[in-house]
Amino acid sequence: MAGKLILYVDHVSQPSRALSLLCRAIRAPHQEIYINLMKGEHMKKDYMAVNPFRKIPAAKDGDTLILESCAALRFIASKYDSSDLWYPKNLDIRCKVDEYLDWQHLNTRAHGVGYFRNLVLLPALKKTKPDMQLVNLHKKELKRVQNDFSKYFLGSKPFISGDHISIADLLASCEFEQPIAGGFEFSETILNFIDRVRAEVGPDYDKIHASIRETAKQMMQ
Amino acid sequence: MAGKLILYVDHVSQPSRALSLLCRAIRAPHQEIYINLMKGEHMKKDYMAVNPFRKIPAAKDGDTLILESCAALRFIASKYDSSDLWYPKNLDIRCKVDEYLDWQHLNTRAHGVGYFRNLVLLPALKKTKPDMQLVNLHKKELKRVQNDFSKYFLGSKPFISGDHISIADLLASCEFEQPIAGGFEFSETILNFIDRVRAEVGPDYDKIHASIRETAKQMMQ
Repeated sequence: MAGKLILYVDHVSQPSRALSLLCRAIRAPHQEIYINLMKGEHMKKDYMAVNPFRKIPAAKDGDTLILESCAALRFIASKYDSSDLWYPKNLDIRCKVDEYLDWQHLNTRAHGVGYFRNLVLLPALKKTKPDMQLVNLHKKELKRVQNDFSKYFLGSKPFISGDHISIADLLASCEFEQPIAGGFEFSETILNFIDRVRAEVGPDYDKIHASIRETAKQMMQ
Repeated sequence: MAGKLILYVDHVSQPSRALSLLCRAIRAPHQEIYINLMKGEHMKKDYMAVNPFRKIPAAKDGDTLILESCAALRFIASKYDSSDLWYPKNLDIRCKVDEYLDWQHLNTRAHGVGYFRNLVLLPALKKTKPDMQLVNLHKKELKRVQNDFSKYFLGSKPFISGDHISIADLLASCEFEQPIAGGFEFSETILNFIDRVRAEVGPDYDKIHASIRETAKQMMQ
């Protein structure tokens, strides 16, 4: 259907949650197609016809396909957020949103994923003990990420780009939730930041985070 | 000076070259401050006052500081490119530029850096033989990157977002040049793509790439 926005998501995935929450927050009309990661649906033919890289999330808006989550967040906010708050057009503000979105790939995301994968996911799937050397490496890096995020990206502001939540804050919070679900203890600064994001997003925030919290709980039993 | 654009760069660094070339291509008035990586100037106090993460490139436009290169490319093109070609405002085109800029972090960049660092840089600095297991891992991944870039990002188009060069193509080409300087042989598709980028940028392209080519040559002797 021309112009229809479709998200391919599984809410156990951090950027999937960010995309779903953005669409709900800005009331962008959209459809969600669930691609169950645990069942390997992202590796099946049907989905590979959408995303040859076999990753989620992906977004399709009419004929426009976007296979990277940050690019999809930018696109959806630009097209569907009439408030101009989630991805502000003002370049001096926008560049701070972009700066975090670029930085997080090798920082918040890399080590949040590394921690959760090695401590929770792989041991549950393979029924082995976690590789604690790897877990501790990601733990150490997550503490550095926490420090850099608190001091440089947040500073004394409530959100990354200033007084209002943006797509950068939403993605950051969804990423922080993954190691939290795996037992990582962030500082008060980070926990207060997450509370501010939750307050802006509303009840959908915890609804969308329910599946990763439940999945992690079961895996750690 | 208010409003003045300053780049902190060393042209042996891929994203430094992309930023310098963008400013030249769109004739953005700017000043370049050289931070010599080989001399460790990025680790010194003076530079840490600019960038606490001790990385280059960085950009400063008046009071606005940008520590991530993709964010800086977006900002500079948005502010100084009156042609609207390097980072097009049309969302369906722009999202393809963003998609590549997001994808490259863990692909073109990660493995181009990994290949060059392990085959050329570390052996020269440490006067040891390269770790060929690591080099071959990055080599294999670079071949996958080449395939993904050629098939998905380029397809049958001359540039990533269509008929005109964008900041995504400029960064891609500058990244490809690093493994090339280290002896990696890309396919004709990639080499022809680089030629198209060179033709669009003009003689500055090879001028800005001279230092990495010379440095790599000396290191590999």
